[in-house]
Amino acid sequence: MAIRLSHTDPDFETRFRALLAAKREVSEDVDATVRGILADVRARGDAAVLDYTARFDRLQLAAGALRVSEAEFEAAEKLVDEKTRAALVLARDRIQSHHARQKPVDDRYTDALGVELGSRWTAIEAVGLYVPGGTASYPSSVLMNAVPAKVAGVDRLVMVVPTPDGVINPLVLVAARLAGVDELYRIGGAQAVAALAFGTDTIKPVYKIVGPGNAYVAAAKRQVFGTVGIDMIAGPSEVLVIADGDNDPDWIAADLLAQAEHDTAAQSILMTDDPKLADAVEAAVERQLKTLPRGETAAASWRDFGAVIVVASLDDAVPLSDRMAPEHLEIAVADPEPLVRKVRNAGAIFVGRTTPEVIGDYVGGSNHVLPTARSARFSSGLSVLDFMKRTSILRTGAEQLRVLGPAAIALAEAEGLGAHARSVAIRLNL
Amino acid sequence: MAIRLSHTDPDFETRFRALLAAKREVSEDVDATVRGILADVRARGDAAVLDYTARFDRLQLAAGALRVSEAEFEAAEKLVDEKTRAALVLARDRIQSHHARQKPVDDRYTDALGVELGSRWTAIEAVGLYVPGGTASYPSSVLMNAVPAKVAGVDRLVMVVPTPDGVINPLVLVAARLAGVDELYRIGGAQAVAALAFGTDTIKPVYKIVGPGNAYVAAAKRQVFGTVGIDMIAGPSEVLVIADGDNDPDWIAADLLAQAEHDTAAQSILMTDDPKLADAVEAAVERQLKTLPRGETAAASWRDFGAVIVVASLDDAVPLSDRMAPEHLEIAVADPEPLVRKVRNAGAIFVGRTTPEVIGDYVGGSNHVLPTARSARFSSGLSVLDFMKRTSILRTGAEQLRVLGPAAIALAEAEGLGAHARSVAIRLNL
Repeated sequence: MAIRLSHTDPDFETRFRALLAAKREVSEDVDATVRGILADVRARGDAAVLDYTARFDRLQLAAGALRVSEAEFEAAEKLVDEKTRAALVLARDRIQSHHARQKPVDDRYTDALGVELGSRWTAIEAVGLYVPGGTASYPSSVLMNAVPAKVAGVDRLVMVVPTPDGVINPLVLVAARLAGVDELYRIGGAQAVAALAFGTDTIKPVYKIVGPGNAYVAAAKRQVFGTVGIDMIAGPSEVLVIADGDNDPDWIAADLLAQAEHDTAAQSILMTDDPKLADAVEAAVERQLKTLPRGETAAASWRDFGAVIVVASLDDAVPLSDRMAPEHLEIAVADPEPLVRKVRNAGAIFVGRTTPEVIGDYVGGSNHVLPTARSARFSSGLSVLDFMKRTSILRTGAEQLRVLGPAAIALAEAEGLGAHARSVAIRLNL
Repeated sequence: MAIRLSHTDPDFETRFRALLAAKREVSEDVDATVRGILADVRARGDAAVLDYTARFDRLQLAAGALRVSEAEFEAAEKLVDEKTRAALVLARDRIQSHHARQKPVDDRYTDALGVELGSRWTAIEAVGLYVPGGTASYPSSVLMNAVPAKVAGVDRLVMVVPTPDGVINPLVLVAARLAGVDELYRIGGAQAVAALAFGTDTIKPVYKIVGPGNAYVAAAKRQVFGTVGIDMIAGPSEVLVIADGDNDPDWIAADLLAQAEHDTAAQSILMTDDPKLADAVEAAVERQLKTLPRGETAAASWRDFGAVIVVASLDDAVPLSDRMAPEHLEIAVADPEPLVRKVRNAGAIFVGRTTPEVIGDYVGGSNHVLPTARSARFSSGLSVLDFMKRTSILRTGAEQLRVLGPAAIALAEAEGLGAHARSVAIRLNL
């Protein structure tokens, strides 16, 4: 049973703060272990990767077999039914067309003084994509990470996925191929992150590593940051549903449970101005839990981290939501747009009663890799920009240098940087 | 004396790789110390900040005196001469007008199916700006970090600067005021980062922390990452100058030394197709070093990390430059644009003989906070985007849900996520 808060209760602020501060992740201290694995792969390359793969994935391989072969991709295609394949294609195409709109535009212009300035965007040449193994090996995540990379123009997109006991999810292979992944290696854990960051004889290094993973993968990404770029470190998923009284409680309950079934540390919160709906949704959650395949996980999440917040008016909802900065925000009210306009901190907004968050997980077209744990206050979901970088361009002719030079010299001198001043002065014959 | 490499030498590749791999930073292990300071500030707030300020900056303060007062800003104004102030205003205005062009455009559209999608950019509400104390307390860095934040629309821009023995650089105060900094506190080190990230009674928390600092500040930023956003961790500065034979060796030498004077760990590299120019620049460097106020620093940088690379043809220059991914790239050749177009990995390009990198440090208008240590392969200089975040928006009507729903259900089922499937199916009466 989730906790219940009422905005008008005198202890609301205290309890709301406690909800915001709740630690949902147990942080494992795996830094030392990971440091050892990274150093070993850096030193011994393929041999170290093969050793760790034998130890952690119970898989004896030769270096030549690290890469998933064309024949394996073909075999995987045969294992996927037509309906699922068509759904993956639809998802791929919609992700592609939405993300194509995110491509930044170069800017080169001459200002009033005659100085030329510019910003030029180029794709990162080589990117590594980590995909978890086992039950968390989601084909939708492959698409959500790989398609934007390819839209950005990444030349070499290298995916890794651990295959414990040699088992590989054929859907992951099919998704990788649909998304245009260039190389796929059957490795995981810190050893895979190390191979991508430092390179081995078999795997050429990449410049950035993205994708979710367990505590070892997260620690490895943090440790190689600087050598390569990394994406955000994702935490457990979360949803906040803002709902008026005119909702079907079963719809809302299903949405709350769709988050909760991800992980016992996931968080589902309902915010409503109607205490009756609150009651009805809580009852529906309990009812639906009974027939849910992942019911135990969802029940634990709902019990430990779920919450129902009753507000006096929906006008109070957005300010509270902005403090929570939810990864996913559903706005299930009669006239959602005025609320949508007010939202400042949220990873993604799902507008209206017929936009369940799950549509965004798969086929909406927008990205499902979104900022968790209140980080939507300062960061964004995955986009094409994460696979590109910007070079700035400056050109001053002799004329412009004469105009701007003296100010540059004045500032260099004020900062005590004599060679800076000279580098300008010498061109002005000063 | 810098090392000399020739592209046609048989050992070139080996030596070039060694140059790329050269470690210029001594990494101090200050993690444990920093962890203690962060925990203490988190627990004791202002009292801890005041204790560390007394210990590290030899400055006894009451909490009420942490914030720099209006009277101090007024006093600082009187200490800055008119020429320097005018240079700061010029720099501020040029940075402002260039960065205004970086503001991203919101996108909301309806696709062929009738699905509404969107991306909306909003400013981060509160940002902290770390400014180093002492000789590295540069007013130009204040402008380069603070102006883009204000252009982005950050509501509350909070600056911290340590003032060892109570000494504060008046130029830094004037620059902070010109840039629109909202609050300024005289604290530094890990304790300042902690105060910004966790908040104290005096200092309300921020959502992101930017700006350069020493090893303690960098470690503190890494440790609070997640609680708040951080910018890149900047390394020592570097420049690569690509020059044809038709350059004044003294101009090029001055540019190389302008980087070298920053730091003994800075790196200046000349790449040219003219061995005579290489010789002449080396001689000019030695000559200019003698009259440089920061000659010792520059000489150590040039001796330990400087390099001159002679290529057979300028066509070879850009591929090598892309492997180096320099923070600053000067292209001092007769017809620079064809080379500019080829560059893929560089923080900023300075085009033509009359665009010394120093113009970009101060008054060009582009940002001087740029990716170091080859990270231009995967990251960009500071921009307005670093102070904003994007919320994605999705809206499917009942009609669109009927079209897309079955594919979402198919993928949810393929991924074993029953509540995901139900969240869609229940809306379709399935």
